[in-house]
Amino acid sequence: MEQETILQGFRYRQLATELEGRITSGQYKLGERMPSLRNLHQRTGYSITTVAQAYAELQTRGLVEPRHKSGFFVCAAPLRSLPLPRGGGQSLDRPRKVSISSLAESILSVLHDPSVLPFGAALPACELLPLRQLASASRSVRRHYFTGHGLGYGHPQGEEVLRRRIAARMLHVGRQVDAGELVITNGCLDGIQLCLRAVAQPGDIIITESPTFTCYLQLIEQLGLMALEIPTDPQSGIDLGLLEEALFNGTWRRNRVAACLLNPSFHNPLGFDMPPARKQELVELLAAQQIPVIEDDIYGDLHFGTTRPVPLKRFDSQGLVLYCSSFSKTLAPDFRVGWIMPGRYHEQIARLQFNSSIARSKLPQLIVADFLEHENYDRHLRRLRQAISHQVASTARAIARFFPEGTKLTAPDGGYILWVELPDGVDGMELYQRAKMEKIFIIPGVIASSTGRFKNCIRISCGTPWSETMEQGMRRLGELAAQMAEEGR
Amino acid sequence: MEQETILQGFRYRQLATELEGRITSGQYKLGERMPSLRNLHQRTGYSITTVAQAYAELQTRGLVEPRHKSGFFVCAAPLRSLPLPRGGGQSLDRPRKVSISSLAESILSVLHDPSVLPFGAALPACELLPLRQLASASRSVRRHYFTGHGLGYGHPQGEEVLRRRIAARMLHVGRQVDAGELVITNGCLDGIQLCLRAVAQPGDIIITESPTFTCYLQLIEQLGLMALEIPTDPQSGIDLGLLEEALFNGTWRRNRVAACLLNPSFHNPLGFDMPPARKQELVELLAAQQIPVIEDDIYGDLHFGTTRPVPLKRFDSQGLVLYCSSFSKTLAPDFRVGWIMPGRYHEQIARLQFNSSIARSKLPQLIVADFLEHENYDRHLRRLRQAISHQVASTARAIARFFPEGTKLTAPDGGYILWVELPDGVDGMELYQRAKMEKIFIIPGVIASSTGRFKNCIRISCGTPWSETMEQGMRRLGELAAQMAEEGR
Repeated sequence: MEQETILQGFRYRQLATELEGRITSGQYKLGERMPSLRNLHQRTGYSITTVAQAYAELQTRGLVEPRHKSGFFVCAAPLRSLPLPRGGGQSLDRPRKVSISSLAESILSVLHDPSVLPFGAALPACELLPLRQLASASRSVRRHYFTGHGLGYGHPQGEEVLRRRIAARMLHVGRQVDAGELVITNGCLDGIQLCLRAVAQPGDIIITESPTFTCYLQLIEQLGLMALEIPTDPQSGIDLGLLEEALFNGTWRRNRVAACLLNPSFHNPLGFDMPPARKQELVELLAAQQIPVIEDDIYGDLHFGTTRPVPLKRFDSQGLVLYCSSFSKTLAPDFRVGWIMPGRYHEQIARLQFNSSIARSKLPQLIVADFLEHENYDRHLRRLRQAISHQVASTARAIARFFPEGTKLTAPDGGYILWVELPDGVDGMELYQRAKMEKIFIIPGVIASSTGRFKNCIRISCGTPWSETMEQGMRRLGELAAQMAEEGR
Repeated sequence: MEQETILQGFRYRQLATELEGRITSGQYKLGERMPSLRNLHQRTGYSITTVAQAYAELQTRGLVEPRHKSGFFVCAAPLRSLPLPRGGGQSLDRPRKVSISSLAESILSVLHDPSVLPFGAALPACELLPLRQLASASRSVRRHYFTGHGLGYGHPQGEEVLRRRIAARMLHVGRQVDAGELVITNGCLDGIQLCLRAVAQPGDIIITESPTFTCYLQLIEQLGLMALEIPTDPQSGIDLGLLEEALFNGTWRRNRVAACLLNPSFHNPLGFDMPPARKQELVELLAAQQIPVIEDDIYGDLHFGTTRPVPLKRFDSQGLVLYCSSFSKTLAPDFRVGWIMPGRYHEQIARLQFNSSIARSKLPQLIVADFLEHENYDRHLRRLRQAISHQVASTARAIARFFPEGTKLTAPDGGYILWVELPDGVDGMELYQRAKMEKIFIIPGVIASSTGRFKNCIRISCGTPWSETMEQGMRRLGELAAQMAEEGR
């Protein structure tokens, strides 16, 4: 509840954000003394109290520190102080069977454990969610849900009232969307699973990025598919030249390329938004070969800049893009309400969906629909984006301060995720193990690929508001990494 | 709400049920005059009003009819008046690819349409559900759900509080069950899907009953498996001799038998409960070959007799039985809360579950858990069983009255489903089509098999309280069937 009050008090946050901009742009430099309270009060017209609150906020964000009787001093380096990681390499790999589930499962099994420091799951902390408004939507749904036909099976493709509300919000695909084009799923991953099953048979090749989201690899393994990972750059995304080479390569003709599974907007784990022109090029390249693309746009609404990314779906003239998203990262992880806009695969998806479990529960769907109708989702998203961008910035600054020399770090354009390349010789799996002993949960980079690459990388999520505890956790993680770098010398 | 009041007024129902017993046992015969109100009042001590209510109830159930100034007359023949259908034949079929989804889907697409007469879906009507108690459980869950960590991801295997409550109710498997042995699923069918994926690879053979539940065949098709249907008798269940023959037959050694998928307690569609000794024999036969059994026990709690069926799981000494059930048929279809007790396949199931969609929503799980803790589920089940047994009996009587000569009918021991064998030459698909034109929804028997058998059968569900409208629907259905029998001569 406290976070909500903070988010709603705009004045001091406005000032803090303005000051933060001057720090991260280098106008106020590391170690420099910030203007006094009185000075700022006089210059800006904000009250002394507001100025004091703004400094407290900057301190929480890890940007300034107080010194005895001397006011506040800048303690943060500019944001992009660390070089970018290398991404997925320069050359084309071969398709391979995936065998990662058992390791990934043991690592991800603490996702729901509230006793660990949450640098693992890329999820909004509960205090960032519109709890009061969701509770109110739930109350309003309950009135008709527990009477009449409320408890009978819902529509196999999801409640129409929800599909209509989602369709109305899908203008970023560049045209009016009809509710009938959408299928509601049990979260985004369930949608991706349905898409894979709709377009691929066991033995088929799925092209994906390298590094990529572990759960994609687990699905590929589980469905008996092969993964072909294409090197992906932390700024420009998947290597289109190598992708083209992969499509035209004759040596794996025994297994056909059935689909691409991509996450081009605020990529997990690299955080980039692929430039629109490259997105268009990608869609056209694949359309020429009639290869379907499963697009995961789950982070699309979480842009740190002013505009929302353009999805691949926007350039899809042939219905070959199966667009997947969900409300898990923005509204309520537990609701498990996602959706697919499957283009020409609509019929297959609807059938798989029905056959798998007849229908999804209407209850969370109706709550989301009611929320979208009666509450201000866009305002919530604006606040959430602001909160997350600060959390990512605070975490990035802490990494820059506490991690050993030679560490590289992504500069995400949106989403919750930072990707850290540790100095040569520091093993991410070992760091994960040592951190786990101290109840700090991070994800080792090696499970972001089926190739064994990314051994010296880790993934850090920033879903939880920055705090003293989070800072201590990151400091300790940095110490562990530094210790390992030392041991490796 | 009205139904709930009726269910709670026990006295007149008690009397009605007693009188019904005398009618169905033949003590009061078809056409005979029933005792007068005054006579019954004096003999039984029930008030005149209660006796009058009991007669009204018997009239609604289609057992008596009033005649002008002469009281009530028996208008129902004893229940088991129609001969049993033939079941699945005498000889062993071959395994075959299944291609039924497209037909089944077009037929089942009206499942959620409230404008048709609901003889299709085997579901309890909303008025049979404990709506008030569920709403109260929902209120109590809401208090902690929309705060703190409520909205984060739940445990991948389902909420422990729910698993504990389910485990405590699983004594029918013959031993104490631990919450850790269970995995929560998105309804029973989702559980069966996970089980099939855990034990079988594409191309494998799944042995099932004939006739069987359409959705099993759809899953088998969807997962690229083969179905081997074993003839199943409407009293004794799957033919164990032919099953043994199938297991030892060398001619389909190219494809291995990966599992049996069975519904031995209140079988869908034949309604029988397989005798316990035969269940034991079945489990031992399969265990000797190390063949896993996926047991669907979704109707197990809906026995018309005094005792609950013994599941196959009870005879499972080797962990080869994957037991599946759900609350969809007894508490709240829309919640989609089911569970698996997967025996030795626990790890595979847990992994598939996690990989498919990380977690299921906690919200409906917590409501069910709260209901099980604070409400009297057993009392609800008793009332539900009583209501359903009446609905099944009323429907069976209507079929006996209205359908043409030569019709055969099952005599289910529990559950919602009647299986009708129409006179030779009357096509179930054609009857389905004609009924659909008049907004009466039944299921043609041909989709209960991949073999093309059961063309002259239909499945009728009895989830909705009997009423004048239901009776008119069944009368019209009988007229249509009679008309077709006439045309066929």
